[in-house]
Amino acid sequence: MQNSTRSESPIQLRSLGSFHIGGSIARLEDRPQLELTPVPGSPSIRIDPNGSFPFGQMYVQYARLESPRSPWPIFLWHGGGLTGACWESTPDGRAGWQSFFLRSGLDVYACDAVERGRASWSRYPDIYPSEPFFMPQHAAWELYRVGRPDGFSDDPALRSGFPGGLFPVHDFDAFTRQIVPRWSSNDALIQAAYGELLLREGPCILLAHSQGGGFALRAALAHPEMVKALVLVEPGGAPDLTPSDIASLVGIPTSTVWGDNVQAVPFWAAARAKSDAIMESILRHGGKAHTMDLPAMGIRGNSHLPMMDENSDEVAGHIRDWLRQNGLLD
Amino acid sequence: MQNSTRSESPIQLRSLGSFHIGGSIARLEDRPQLELTPVPGSPSIRIDPNGSFPFGQMYVQYARLESPRSPWPIFLWHGGGLTGACWESTPDGRAGWQSFFLRSGLDVYACDAVERGRASWSRYPDIYPSEPFFMPQHAAWELYRVGRPDGFSDDPALRSGFPGGLFPVHDFDAFTRQIVPRWSSNDALIQAAYGELLLREGPCILLAHSQGGGFALRAALAHPEMVKALVLVEPGGAPDLTPSDIASLVGIPTSTVWGDNVQAVPFWAAARAKSDAIMESILRHGGKAHTMDLPAMGIRGNSHLPMMDENSDEVAGHIRDWLRQNGLLD
Repeated sequence: MQNSTRSESPIQLRSLGSFHIGGSIARLEDRPQLELTPVPGSPSIRIDPNGSFPFGQMYVQYARLESPRSPWPIFLWHGGGLTGACWESTPDGRAGWQSFFLRSGLDVYACDAVERGRASWSRYPDIYPSEPFFMPQHAAWELYRVGRPDGFSDDPALRSGFPGGLFPVHDFDAFTRQIVPRWSSNDALIQAAYGELLLREGPCILLAHSQGGGFALRAALAHPEMVKALVLVEPGGAPDLTPSDIASLVGIPTSTVWGDNVQAVPFWAAARAKSDAIMESILRHGGKAHTMDLPAMGIRGNSHLPMMDENSDEVAGHIRDWLRQNGLLD
Repeated sequence: MQNSTRSESPIQLRSLGSFHIGGSIARLEDRPQLELTPVPGSPSIRIDPNGSFPFGQMYVQYARLESPRSPWPIFLWHGGGLTGACWESTPDGRAGWQSFFLRSGLDVYACDAVERGRASWSRYPDIYPSEPFFMPQHAAWELYRVGRPDGFSDDPALRSGFPGGLFPVHDFDAFTRQIVPRWSSNDALIQAAYGELLLREGPCILLAHSQGGGFALRAALAHPEMVKALVLVEPGGAPDLTPSDIASLVGIPTSTVWGDNVQAVPFWAAARAKSDAIMESILRHGGKAHTMDLPAMGIRGNSHLPMMDENSDEVAGHIRDWLRQNGLLD
């Protein structure tokens, strides 16, 4: 069975549930009937593709504590190719950050962005303008910084991650089962739904990973009063910030978290440089900006997925401590 | 905010997590590079579609109690067009059956079948043989028996459900946000993953809705020792059973649950007839087969979605009581 946590005290929940938020209704008319062939060689079936379809909504699953130790929930926004499942368990079956933050006293809202996971997705090119793309395993290996390109093999026994790397390489296949298709054309829909979420369910502590970090920064700029703290775990896709943007962020305690081997992947080296520049700007303007550079803290080997690495609880513990130091959690 | 359940005692969880199970790895080679245009008019980007891709896996989210009152968890298998989100909250924000069964003392495993929700989905026609279809709102209105076809309108204010119907019609749009695309060509993959789940995580109490009922019956036939009880909520897609199939089911206490207005929709009238015939066969062979005919019990107005209807807790209560009567729950 999965993680056994008998030694710990139970998580006492007041409620567990979910909702969808955001989006609109698209009406398709006059589309020709579709002839679908369920299986090659089978008779075709006729489908009427016309009617009304919700689109642009996202999914939010909440676990609320009987006795939270913060007035604000933590919202978990996943990165590209992933869903809220990335926070639940590690690929090797340990408890994930959802459990960690619940046990730390925070209500947890785990989100699936528009088009991913339980948020559902929509017809293209009728509703989404483009087709999706699918991440092959070798690309995930590189993008999530499990190891160098030549360390990947289709044969799990022949894979080797970065020396000293903490991603559970033996469970890389298990990890890749949670990867979902994505579109490059839906950023505005995704951002709008996140904005609606903040307005309806905020204020919150906002923790975002990778691509989610870009959405989180933009959401914080649009609704700074709804973000009590911003934790950006290896943020990607950060916007170019104007001086007035920086002024909006100055009131929000912000921390980035960066793992190891960042310089080995040009995409992440560039994202790191941008992230550092943003943090420096916030500091220069008198804001609270903290960079959790894990290797500089003596913590070596983290991949782009610290919530799944072998020291996932240790990394989460540093985030929890930083929230406490900023008065956001008892 | 969503459902407030302050008056109830907390749900005490030992663990909360998830995993993916089932499926295999597909290798795509020699596919031409894709030219994707993210947004009409934008420069195109080049994507290499080749590599290794997991496919055929499903998603399972477990919530395990500190002190369960049954040795067996309840597995919740959703129906067509839906995901495990259907069990979490009702469209009008009340606690769903996931919470109900947790509060009743059962560990709950909520599943997303292959191709749906957090299970992810795969390229077609390269991996899945056919294209998906998307359910328009008017089709959902009819299929889920919210009301007669002429009771649907694109304008929410002009909709009227069945007289005395218990589906929260004012939140029909909210409900349809959770509908996901589906394929008609993946039944074997779906069935195989469910089988792996039973073998690895069973025995269980298996509660399945609609299309999930057909998968549950086939899974129980394949692995009867892994199913301690079978609850089929408005089952669709039931297989044709042989006498030896019936013999396999005789050892499993089985209950169906049927709502109101079944005869108003020919598809469900036929499914009901088939379901009743199966239950009669099991009874005739000496098995424990129970039909929860809600209207015959004086409970009028249930749709095809009793887990979302206004009396969702009442219906779940009858299921809980039946489990208790069969010695499956203290």
